[in-house]
Amino acid sequence: MNISFIGLGKMGYPMAKHLVQANHQLEVFNRSPSKSEDFKRNFEQCTIANSLTDCGKHSEIIILCIGNDEDVRNTLTGKDSLYSNLKPGTLVIDHTTTSAELACEMQAKLLEKQVDYVDAPVSGGEQGAISGQLTIMCGGQALAAERAQGITQAYSKSFTHMGPIGSGQLTKMVNQICVAGLIEALAEGIHFGQQAGLDMEKVMKVVGSGAASSWQLQNRYQTMLEDQYDFGFAVDHMRKDLEICLKEAKKMNTSLPSTAMVDQLYGELQQSGHGQLDTSSLLKRLQNK
Amino acid sequence: MNISFIGLGKMGYPMAKHLVQANHQLEVFNRSPSKSEDFKRNFEQCTIANSLTDCGKHSEIIILCIGNDEDVRNTLTGKDSLYSNLKPGTLVIDHTTTSAELACEMQAKLLEKQVDYVDAPVSGGEQGAISGQLTIMCGGQALAAERAQGITQAYSKSFTHMGPIGSGQLTKMVNQICVAGLIEALAEGIHFGQQAGLDMEKVMKVVGSGAASSWQLQNRYQTMLEDQYDFGFAVDHMRKDLEICLKEAKKMNTSLPSTAMVDQLYGELQQSGHGQLDTSSLLKRLQNK
Amino acid sequence: MNISFIGLGKMGYPMAKHLVQANHQLEVFNRSPSKSEDFKRNFEQCTIANSLTDCGKHSEIIILCIGNDEDVRNTLTGKDSLYSNLKPGTLVIDHTTTSAELACEMQAKLLEKQVDYVDAPVSGGEQGAISGQLTIMCGGQALAAERAQGITQAYSKSFTHMGPIGSGQLTKMVNQICVAGLIEALAEGIHFGQQAGLDMEKVMKVVGSGAASSWQLQNRYQTMLEDQYDFGFAVDHMRKDLEICLKEAKKMNTSLPSTAMVDQLYGELQQSGHGQLDTSSLLKRLQNK
Amino acid sequence: MNISFIGLGKMGYPMAKHLVQANHQLEVFNRSPSKSEDFKRNFEQCTIANSLTDCGKHSEIIILCIGNDEDVRNTLTGKDSLYSNLKPGTLVIDHTTTSAELACEMQAKLLEKQVDYVDAPVSGGEQGAISGQLTIMCGGQALAAERAQGITQAYSKSFTHMGPIGSGQLTKMVNQICVAGLIEALAEGIHFGQQAGLDMEKVMKVVGSGAASSWQLQNRYQTMLEDQYDFGFAVDHMRKDLEICLKEAKKMNTSLPSTAMVDQLYGELQQSGHGQLDTSSLLKRLQNK
Repeated sequence: MNISFIGLGKMGYPMAKHLVQANHQLEVFNRSPSKSEDFKRNFEQCTIANSLTDCGKHSEIIILCIGNDEDVRNTLTGKDSLYSNLKPGTLVIDHTTTSAELACEMQAKLLEKQVDYVDAPVSGGEQGAISGQLTIMCGGQALAAERAQGITQAYSKSFTHMGPIGSGQLTKMVNQICVAGLIEALAEGIHFGQQAGLDMEKVMKVVGSGAASSWQLQNRYQTMLEDQYDFGFAVDHMRKDLEICLKEAKKMNTSLPSTAMVDQLYGELQQSGHGQLDTSSLLKRLQNK
Repeated sequence: MNISFIGLGKMGYPMAKHLVQANHQLEVFNRSPSKSEDFKRNFEQCTIANSLTDCGKHSEIIILCIGNDEDVRNTLTGKDSLYSNLKPGTLVIDHTTTSAELACEMQAKLLEKQVDYVDAPVSGGEQGAISGQLTIMCGGQALAAERAQGITQAYSKSFTHMGPIGSGQLTKMVNQICVAGLIEALAEGIHFGQQAGLDMEKVMKVVGSGAASSWQLQNRYQTMLEDQYDFGFAVDHMRKDLEICLKEAKKMNTSLPSTAMVDQLYGELQQSGHGQLDTSSLLKRLQNK
Repeated sequence: MNISFIGLGKMGYPMAKHLVQANHQLEVFNRSPSKSEDFKRNFEQCTIANSLTDCGKHSEIIILCIGNDEDVRNTLTGKDSLYSNLKPGTLVIDHTTTSAELACEMQAKLLEKQVDYVDAPVSGGEQGAISGQLTIMCGGQALAAERAQGITQAYSKSFTHMGPIGSGQLTKMVNQICVAGLIEALAEGIHFGQQAGLDMEKVMKVVGSGAASSWQLQNRYQTMLEDQYDFGFAVDHMRKDLEICLKEAKKMNTSLPSTAMVDQLYGELQQSGHGQLDTSSLLKRLQNK
Repeated sequence: MNISFIGLGKMGYPMAKHLVQANHQLEVFNRSPSKSEDFKRNFEQCTIANSLTDCGKHSEIIILCIGNDEDVRNTLTGKDSLYSNLKPGTLVIDHTTTSAELACEMQAKLLEKQVDYVDAPVSGGEQGAISGQLTIMCGGQALAAERAQGITQAYSKSFTHMGPIGSGQLTKMVNQICVAGLIEALAEGIHFGQQAGLDMEKVMKVVGSGAASSWQLQNRYQTMLEDQYDFGFAVDHMRKDLEICLKEAKKMNTSLPSTAMVDQLYGELQQSGHGQLDTSSLLKRLQNK
């Protein structure tokens, strides 16, 4: 299959690699060209698009893994975008975490050119991208979702069609809402235990065997105890996602008091210059280190 | 072994039953005598103590599973308590969730009579008590903890000696701190998804397969979706525990912003007359049902 | 002076009236024409603009008092806006509460036509507009601010030039941040006192005479005690303003934990259908009425 | 009148001074005797009680201005207290901020000796004590309150009988609840304005002239802007008071989400070693200085 892959960041690069290894013919584009060149050096069979206006001309599938709403809008429909290159029957798979609104807007614009669009944010982080074990939450029309599933199996362990356009993004928001408050609770538990002088390795094993257990506890407590915060999703990214969640919630008159508070606590980490630490660094804030 | 078991509530009753089935000779006491009588009807080989001043005279082990600090203090050392019956070498195992301070105070008072005391709060809930699969977090002297482990294996799947007296209680507090904020985050995620009109069964399966997963998500999302809140630990009990956590934290100059907020949200549930619902009813508050 | 006044809402209508009474020659425009017609009936000397493309052609001053960023952008620079009518030397005074960013954007676009722009949000509410006693916080160039002050004295008791463009909006945000948390604190105090069964009239008089006193306490406690919430700024408007505050704060890496929480509590009021009550209705939420 | 005054701290010392100056015959007692001796040096006509068991034997009025519930209990009814010295007809005026429960308990115990007791916490701070301009909120029987008013007018500008025993304390709690959230809101407003680069002197003057105004804004903004936090009530004392508020609220099933959060933020200040700063230092926490 001819695929254009746009966005070779920490997530996109390994995802594109899995597509090459699944014998797809890849065209890659990245805003800063050095990453495309690096990718080309490693995977010679791929081609590089030098600009968006060159991109996607011969592709049946276009995959995006970029920054935010504005990036997606500019890439797909902006001035000097690839909009004019889009042919009827193309499928755009958008792995960017965006608002549900953006997904609706993109679908509408692309349908004018008989191009399909699915919102398909992922979870599983950098590790999942590297190991090809991402979880994909997809919104859009059923047939488009089915096509997307076929392609993305190269780098995913699970793919779920959540419902109409935007449903993938809304599901990702549920995920981030659940994660944010959970990490703060875990951080408060660890902070309390440390201040009390407990043997925290022991405590986490006991606590992690019951009703307080969570993926975050199992996978992060040790690095948290070691004051190590470079194991995953960064605070800066989390805040971008929580902004989308809180905005969407506001539109629905849905109150999220804990999420809003944790968002502010992440803001305090950013203010202290810790925006690049992983999300479990809420412990660091509590420790005032 | 001759054991006195005090407190035949939802937790204590099945725990005592496991001790009888492990062939221990049990004396039981409960503030309201009807429960002791019921227990006696089911397990004829046990004896009933009619008052605390009669209780423990022939026991090597005394086990408590009662309400709060004040109950423990009154039972062990108060006026008309079993204090005068305590013989050197007795071990008191306290399964009540109390402050760490109370544990220190009890140990000190009992040591005057050469009686050992361990604080041994449990997790696993009513289900764990019934199936004999509780998790026990024990604080106290090593030899006393070892004795307690031998006895309590009748109803536990794990027993950990956490450290000196009070460490069991402090570990339980870490557990409750981790749980409280986690449930609110889960509730906010579900509330958001419901308001967005998502297929929540699908969403919870996807979200539950990754970094947002937790024991609470796996074991409570279905009942939460069904607006069913009689599956475990009650709001009223959680507030009692969180009061202990926040008081202890205050003594240690340890800030727990999310825990304090969730404690107030539980307070709103109580104010609405929902103190007997299980802790996952934070969703109900968000839904304003 | 020839003045175009755009936006005859609860605030704008009485402000425009003060301008007429100060003998200015007014042209008015309102999205729904019935309000313009009503105004014309009361003040015959004014003229009505039937559309934005007709508006401002003969005016030296254009005053806006409308909804939000998008409204201002559409009015001044959008398709079918009054942009093409703007003559060099005109001054646009924008009383709308918007983001600081919008103010910068508008100033830049209007300067291309040698038109001056000041952001000039107000405080003092409907009462202040009616009595002509508003407080104006103005951002922009000094000379433009001075011109604005001369005109707006018809309906203001104070006018302060806060600094460069956007400073008026930023000052208004400081105001709203201070107000939001203050009202919640007041509501919690009253709620506590009511639950305790105190004579709240007496309590408010004592408490209001010292370090807990505030404009809100003095001016709202009686209506709060009477469960009356139609005395000023509505919850829906407050949420719009707080959204601007929190977004601006996020851009500056500035954490506002209390503001974020109170914003969510206002969201709960909206969810309960109380978006049109005044901001002191946070008490109602606490009372769960 | 023969008066025993117990507790010559920052508040008590100047209050006692006003009583001497009003020509009362004073006996003073302080836990650390150096303060009593200093007082005696300044006011020779007074006498010093060397111990509580010596204190109050010849007094018609006993005034307390000490630390907390436990201190009051020990002073009035504990071992080596002045309990045995109390004569029928004596009036105890307690200016300590305590729980309402303590007030009820003390009244009951003292009534056994036909001694009257009123809870009479004050506001107005050290400045108010020095200038004799305190505000007194009194709970207790009407006649006792009337007697208390006569005596305390030496150092108060207002005295209100709030209702039955404990009502003074509950009123003080309303005061502290209103103050805590208000200061955090003010701190967030100032922090936001500073980060935005506004001229904060100007901003505070404008904001302070309208609906965001408060005693705290008027009296603390300048010292806050100067990073000066030694102008009044300390964080450590506020946390003690908020603990009483939150405990009382919990008993009444009354949720105080903002108060609980601000209490934790004060906890972060204590954790950073700032417990002796005044309550407006919430700004310092936001600034992460």
